[in-house]
Amino acid sequence: MGVVIPIDLRSDTVTQPDEEMRRAMASAEVGDDVLDHDPTMAALEERVAALLGVEAALWVPSGSMGNLIALFLHLDRGDRFLAPLGAHVLDAELGTAAWLAGGMPHALPVMSPEAVVAAGGGESPYYGLRTTLLCVENTHNASGGTVTTADEHASLVSTARSIGLAVHLDGARLWNASVALGVSPADLAVGADTVQVCLSKGLGAPVGSVVAGSAAFVVEARRVRKMLGGGVRQGGVLAAAGLVALDRISRLADDHAHASALAAGLRELGWDVPEPATNIVLASVPDPDKTLLSLREVGVFASPMSGKVRFVTHGDVGSSDIAEVLRRLREDA
Amino acid sequence: MGVVIPIDLRSDTVTQPDEEMRRAMASAEVGDDVLDHDPTMAALEERVAALLGVEAALWVPSGSMGNLIALFLHLDRGDRFLAPLGAHVLDAELGTAAWLAGGMPHALPVMSPEAVVAAGGGESPYYGLRTTLLCVENTHNASGGTVTTADEHASLVSTARSIGLAVHLDGARLWNASVALGVSPADLAVGADTVQVCLSKGLGAPVGSVVAGSAAFVVEARRVRKMLGGGVRQGGVLAAAGLVALDRISRLADDHAHASALAAGLRELGWDVPEPATNIVLASVPDPDKTLLSLREVGVFASPMSGKVRFVTHGDVGSSDIAEVLRRLREDA
Amino acid sequence: MGVVIPIDLRSDTVTQPDEEMRRAMASAEVGDDVLDHDPTMAALEERVAALLGVEAALWVPSGSMGNLIALFLHLDRGDRFLAPLGAHVLDAELGTAAWLAGGMPHALPVMSPEAVVAAGGGESPYYGLRTTLLCVENTHNASGGTVTTADEHASLVSTARSIGLAVHLDGARLWNASVALGVSPADLAVGADTVQVCLSKGLGAPVGSVVAGSAAFVVEARRVRKMLGGGVRQGGVLAAAGLVALDRISRLADDHAHASALAAGLRELGWDVPEPATNIVLASVPDPDKTLLSLREVGVFASPMSGKVRFVTHGDVGSSDIAEVLRRLREDA
Amino acid sequence: MGVVIPIDLRSDTVTQPDEEMRRAMASAEVGDDVLDHDPTMAALEERVAALLGVEAALWVPSGSMGNLIALFLHLDRGDRFLAPLGAHVLDAELGTAAWLAGGMPHALPVMSPEAVVAAGGGESPYYGLRTTLLCVENTHNASGGTVTTADEHASLVSTARSIGLAVHLDGARLWNASVALGVSPADLAVGADTVQVCLSKGLGAPVGSVVAGSAAFVVEARRVRKMLGGGVRQGGVLAAAGLVALDRISRLADDHAHASALAAGLRELGWDVPEPATNIVLASVPDPDKTLLSLREVGVFASPMSGKVRFVTHGDVGSSDIAEVLRRLREDA
Repeated sequence: MGVVIPIDLRSDTVTQPDEEMRRAMASAEVGDDVLDHDPTMAALEERVAALLGVEAALWVPSGSMGNLIALFLHLDRGDRFLAPLGAHVLDAELGTAAWLAGGMPHALPVMSPEAVVAAGGGESPYYGLRTTLLCVENTHNASGGTVTTADEHASLVSTARSIGLAVHLDGARLWNASVALGVSPADLAVGADTVQVCLSKGLGAPVGSVVAGSAAFVVEARRVRKMLGGGVRQGGVLAAAGLVALDRISRLADDHAHASALAAGLRELGWDVPEPATNIVLASVPDPDKTLLSLREVGVFASPMSGKVRFVTHGDVGSSDIAEVLRRLREDA
Repeated sequence: MGVVIPIDLRSDTVTQPDEEMRRAMASAEVGDDVLDHDPTMAALEERVAALLGVEAALWVPSGSMGNLIALFLHLDRGDRFLAPLGAHVLDAELGTAAWLAGGMPHALPVMSPEAVVAAGGGESPYYGLRTTLLCVENTHNASGGTVTTADEHASLVSTARSIGLAVHLDGARLWNASVALGVSPADLAVGADTVQVCLSKGLGAPVGSVVAGSAAFVVEARRVRKMLGGGVRQGGVLAAAGLVALDRISRLADDHAHASALAAGLRELGWDVPEPATNIVLASVPDPDKTLLSLREVGVFASPMSGKVRFVTHGDVGSSDIAEVLRRLREDA
Repeated sequence: MGVVIPIDLRSDTVTQPDEEMRRAMASAEVGDDVLDHDPTMAALEERVAALLGVEAALWVPSGSMGNLIALFLHLDRGDRFLAPLGAHVLDAELGTAAWLAGGMPHALPVMSPEAVVAAGGGESPYYGLRTTLLCVENTHNASGGTVTTADEHASLVSTARSIGLAVHLDGARLWNASVALGVSPADLAVGADTVQVCLSKGLGAPVGSVVAGSAAFVVEARRVRKMLGGGVRQGGVLAAAGLVALDRISRLADDHAHASALAAGLRELGWDVPEPATNIVLASVPDPDKTLLSLREVGVFASPMSGKVRFVTHGDVGSSDIAEVLRRLREDA
Repeated sequence: MGVVIPIDLRSDTVTQPDEEMRRAMASAEVGDDVLDHDPTMAALEERVAALLGVEAALWVPSGSMGNLIALFLHLDRGDRFLAPLGAHVLDAELGTAAWLAGGMPHALPVMSPEAVVAAGGGESPYYGLRTTLLCVENTHNASGGTVTTADEHASLVSTARSIGLAVHLDGARLWNASVALGVSPADLAVGADTVQVCLSKGLGAPVGSVVAGSAAFVVEARRVRKMLGGGVRQGGVLAAAGLVALDRISRLADDHAHASALAAGLRELGWDVPEPATNIVLASVPDPDKTLLSLREVGVFASPMSGKVRFVTHGDVGSSDIAEVLRRLREDA
């Protein structure tokens, strides 16, 4: 028996830059982006701002930094903010929303205008805690890449506004939501004060996210990025890859089709798997650690998420890979 | 018609020091407690440590500071901690558990060993978030002064230990739980690494709480107290009041009886009020703000809590006051 | 030979409340100062605001908390502030000006308008560091209780203003400067945005300081005080002592005379001691630790400060005590 | 008259990646460095660790992040640390050493074992401030790229050790010191607990620094890097450039020669310029802002530093450029 080639469905972050992207990086025009200006960075930032329908944008080395900068600027030390239970800012950024950005998180099990009103609402008359921010996440990773429609988004935003909350959108996979819903990213960002989107993950750039909002926000964000150590010099080499990545948003439809095929195949094998909305398949299993280990033994890499097993499709996985995953599981069963 | 004398049931923090307490303050032996030692402070701290069955204790100006010091010392920046939904450390301390102590809070809607295990459990294998602390609160203010029994407490503590969590007990009203359950405060603090108890509230001292734990913890806690500006000089004048307050724990049984009488009377008037476990009556009303206003118009002061109306009985309220409250409400109805 | 009664010149914080002060505490009218209002607190705060010529004031448990609140509200995280080398906010508050208030300190060896201009001056064009605050300290503890005159103060303030800096005055011993210079405390606080003064130390209250400034500042300061755990309930018992303390400002002239007598006597014994400006005598000795130990052996308690030995006169030390100190040192020599 | 081509001497950070470096980036083998491992990153980190004579190393997006991670891990909140006056961690990192790493800085005007002993020395007996870290910087940017010899370094390190301080070396330009002194980088890092070195600046990589130390340190540093948002996915594209950069350390001798030629030429023109030790020329002028403007008018870009005018030579500046700078200044004079 030959070597089993691993199929990596742990995350869409594992994608590798291809030849076109690498060529773009190698030939990028660059400058010192801390001292003054990197032209490729500037082009990338303008393009993302336009895609999101906001004034300005700023490249950052990671989505975690993008979220952190936004929360840092939205929150005064001690401010309370609302976020969906399982949000990336709550569970996957090592607590920085709290200790570094300074916020007191309040998780909402269900995201609805009613839940926002019940939990939010300005300063507590008795104790002085101020709720000042609503974080939304689209697609929502921990629930399995679920999407918030433009109407639902607009309703959450207008509710938040009506009780005095600012809105930050963690759109690390906003492109997936956009493709799944057939609406523009800007339609899904309407009214948010700040938005973070990722160039890595499904789009396949090796490094980088973008945080966006008003021009005034981006001036301050640039300063906070430097604080956190995210100011880079000739970052244009990375921005060039990001520009190529942005040409590939429509490709995500393939990832969604692959996820759907995977879910269907798993269900045929008796797994408890809901139909995925985008590129994330979340399977309920009795013992996730054990399942992850069995999968690894047949060369299928998945990851733990919300007490379940998560498979993520991406650009380095084709329909034949999905078929192969299902074949191995059938044999293994 | 004469002036309506207000009856203040907003909180048991409104109690005034009586003559005996004031005499004790006026005659207290004192020293410089920052430079070296205040003998009355030392006596108070020893007595509380003994009551709680721990090695050492430290006076602090407020329960908020006591909780903050404990969390600061338990948590590394970014550590996740578990606490009951509505806990004082989450909702009533202006976010300091997060931005100042450095913790990422995770609220538990139900406190049970199963919930602790599901939410806790050391370091996340995927993202690196570390859960290191369980906070418990007895009595639990936001649920209406409910009590955790010694068995329930022991079970939560041993579960936390088994998955590597430290335990902090916010016992601002631990005396009430002790009296209601007929067990010693130490029985309700067993196994907790740190405990905070209040000398104000039901016990009636004008100022002060105590945070307690191991001798090593108290050495560090003294330093953090100084950091936060809570080191006082001749604090013995306050400790003297605290010593008098500790003689009055058994008096809390009266407050509980008064709360029970108030709840019964309110139910007769058609209010939706569960039987109180201790000195807090939590009434469900359609519009708390409106109800609070109507109450105030007849000279009854209550406070908002968990979307309900809270009445708290205390040492400055007797059975005739409860009768008078009910009389006014009957007339007003 | 009999027992040697110690004479404690470590700090003016060791003073004990006398009978009048204790009586005032025992009879103070009080309220719940977190929930609404304590009348004696309010009276104290109004009186201090009037003495300092500012709009409003807030009682705090310690001078460290008063300074911390002011710095917290003046500084955004990362802002640079200027303070005299050896300032209490730099060397004696456990780093809170940095990690908690969020400031990057820059120490000035000499306090002069020229030094402020050279070190200050808004945002660095190259790196983005913003200098936003000047801290002054009068009297200056680490230099031996030296005074800044009203003219010098005004000059520092107007210079700071001219380059866009706010000004905080650490006036823990401002009363001493006022008495030594024969001007009002308000004259020495002119133009400062915020001022901290101490009720303990020379004035002899057992606990408490006051931080003062604009009415808007005090609203925010009250909130930060609660954050730090400094909100107390029936604090009027302490405020009553503070009101008595404020009647005793002129008594500080005695402390200054005693310090001068001590310095003269020490010089006669060959010590290297400059003439004190107020109540602090700073002696240069080859080995401070050794000297402090020898002093202790003859029952004279002093403290280390700035690599020297510090003696502080205060209300519990009379001229006969000074004579006795000198007698013991002569015998010991 | 033709267009004046600008000669950019603001910083060695302006260097552009050349063809070889770009080719290396385009062909780099990569992996997901957050999830598991990027082979090119790993190769870079091993090579830097070997160069510095330490166990392990970690790539970071910027030198600021490298310093921040080290300080964050060395310091408990409130710890005091020593650093040279004008150090990058004090003046050029937006205060993060204080508010984010949690340290209270104490600047040393002169770096000598005596100064370290006088300022350091464990916990203050009176106030509890703990001094725990010495930061050194080699070369020292703010003094004009001056070098600390291996002997001087060893002496500072052993002194720090003897009073219980850890040592962090900001070696952003350690390569320059190594070339100027003719010793290995490891000789200049001996005994330091942590070291930060830069791949950008003189070595010309577009992005990136490395922080290094014990294997245990690097495990924790990786976690803090993720906290700050510095974890990148397929960072091997940048590490590849770093590996090329490390081949070019000896090239820095040219930069030093150019700096020396520039200084000599400036002195001939009457400027007050000391002989540079490495690649930084620091000119004392009456009005730096005015001088910078005049320079800019003739197409010579310099930067403000320590109240002087700083010229930095680097890989994109040859001897003909230096001659041209001097020619323009002669004409302009």
